[in-house]
Amino acid sequence: MYNHSDLKELVDRALKNLSYNQEASKLTDPVKYVLSLGGKRLRPVLALMTCNMFSDKIDEAVLPAVGLEIFHNFTLVHDDIMDNAAVRRSFPTVHAKWDNNQAILSGDVMAFIANDCILQTPPDKLLKIFRVYNKAAVEVCMGQQLDMDYEKAAIVTQEMYLRMIELKTAVLIAAAVKTGAIIGGAEEKDADLLHEFGRNLGLAFQVQDDILDIWGDIKAFGKSRGGDIVANKKTLPYVKAMETATGKQLKQLHDLFSGSEKDPESKIKKVTDLYDQLNLREVTETIAYDYINKAFGLLQKVTVDEKRKKEITNLAISLIGRDH
Amino acid sequence: MYNHSDLKELVDRALKNLSYNQEASKLTDPVKYVLSLGGKRLRPVLALMTCNMFSDKIDEAVLPAVGLEIFHNFTLVHDDIMDNAAVRRSFPTVHAKWDNNQAILSGDVMAFIANDCILQTPPDKLLKIFRVYNKAAVEVCMGQQLDMDYEKAAIVTQEMYLRMIELKTAVLIAAAVKTGAIIGGAEEKDADLLHEFGRNLGLAFQVQDDILDIWGDIKAFGKSRGGDIVANKKTLPYVKAMETATGKQLKQLHDLFSGSEKDPESKIKKVTDLYDQLNLREVTETIAYDYINKAFGLLQKVTVDEKRKKEITNLAISLIGRDH
Repeated sequence: MYNHSDLKELVDRALKNLSYNQEASKLTDPVKYVLSLGGKRLRPVLALMTCNMFSDKIDEAVLPAVGLEIFHNFTLVHDDIMDNAAVRRSFPTVHAKWDNNQAILSGDVMAFIANDCILQTPPDKLLKIFRVYNKAAVEVCMGQQLDMDYEKAAIVTQEMYLRMIELKTAVLIAAAVKTGAIIGGAEEKDADLLHEFGRNLGLAFQVQDDILDIWGDIKAFGKSRGGDIVANKKTLPYVKAMETATGKQLKQLHDLFSGSEKDPESKIKKVTDLYDQLNLREVTETIAYDYINKAFGLLQKVTVDEKRKKEITNLAISLIGRDH
Repeated sequence: MYNHSDLKELVDRALKNLSYNQEASKLTDPVKYVLSLGGKRLRPVLALMTCNMFSDKIDEAVLPAVGLEIFHNFTLVHDDIMDNAAVRRSFPTVHAKWDNNQAILSGDVMAFIANDCILQTPPDKLLKIFRVYNKAAVEVCMGQQLDMDYEKAAIVTQEMYLRMIELKTAVLIAAAVKTGAIIGGAEEKDADLLHEFGRNLGLAFQVQDDILDIWGDIKAFGKSRGGDIVANKKTLPYVKAMETATGKQLKQLHDLFSGSEKDPESKIKKVTDLYDQLNLREVTETIAYDYINKAFGLLQKVTVDEKRKKEITNLAISLIGRDH
């Protein structure tokens, strides 16, 4: 069995070894840049882990897995234009370092570089794998659409929010998990169980990310706290706050998110205090834990030896831990 | 044999019958809009024609052919953002009707809708067809990059220009022609001949488009003359003018393209007069005809009965005719 860091290294190496047509080098410079900035490589690592659950031979899964990472980065490049975000992973975003047009076009070509990687799937599994990937890709676009729609929406319910993050984040994680399983030779039933596992894991991961932005351990989390609050992002704590607050508290929240408090640190503190009064840490953690429990219940049903599930179990725990 | 208008109708109907996930309808409204605006449907029609050259049954080629049209429209949606173009085919462009973010995202999803269509290729030909498509898709992005680079370049040579339009326009036409041939059951040699035919046809078509913008019959051409001149586009006549003009004429050209003449009609007239003095209509038409002759020479070598080449021959003639 490969361990987590072996797999991440495999993915990083495969990304580094991608060859690019140099004829229009301005097109691919941003692609190389964005793929060199690191990150957890969560999707390809998960794909390789599920492949390795069923097969000792994982090389056939490497390029399809890398394709998912390239697709993921394609969405980040374009989302950063749409969100007008200047920094990601502590580096300038592509449109900030180059310009919007370059970020659009270099993003576009990443979608086709991702296709190229997916096309390296063993031919007898290509159609199945490509369908899994492409369905997720369309859904991720739908998730980004809902995210944009909800920015302007007066009311976003818990249900709307959870469906949005399911599309925007969870479906691609689910697709990664399923891709690896299929290439590793899993039977349909196990592949479907793992797909569902991935979906629940992805939901738990995103909810936990919302929670950590407010109550996370700054050192372990690796980014400063309260960014979502400052950006008025409609996270799960926000959605639950709007749902449960009444009277004076609701008015305070509306005022804070309408810009009444100009000082970011003060805004973060005031919003967090209100969230605490509303007991939202527990409320939202309960939702995350519900997904986590579902995920592990599904993983348990997969018909391989428990020791082959060890790496993915550890990864899942670290992803949804309180201090990742 | 299907004739041109049968095939265009088939394509239009297939585009109209595409089903969309309605959950995030704002995502697909612009997709439906842009696909409803018409156009020649050149790429899918060509694909169906070459399929029909080898097979009486063309239904298996319809969705892959439609995928190429959707890809083509995806590039138009994003190119129009990059070029800041407000109108295409007499209708507002997507970013003008909605906004840039919507045009980026709705464009993105079109790339995956195109994938979905290509995935409908008969499974035994899928890998081959997808590779042909994806190589062209990457090259079209490269062509758009060169186009953007050349806008700012001090000197663009004929060679640079022709390579740019080869990537931006000809490779996708070549891919369409090859796709149809493969699905129709053409042997490798014929498919490759047709690919080369499509490449030359695409080059001739684009050069002819440049020529028609200046010297075309307005009524038959269907758009007003001189748009490329007003927009300072580096067309083949422009490139040849900069290459051949000297002294006073060169200075006049530089002045005109630096904005010395504010009145568009007057600018068009002055530039056209200079092009005429430089004999550029003949010079550029000679280049177009050279590609046309190559294209027909290649088509002639394809090993099917001449009567099966009739429709594509007619289409090719109409495309590169003086008054399309």
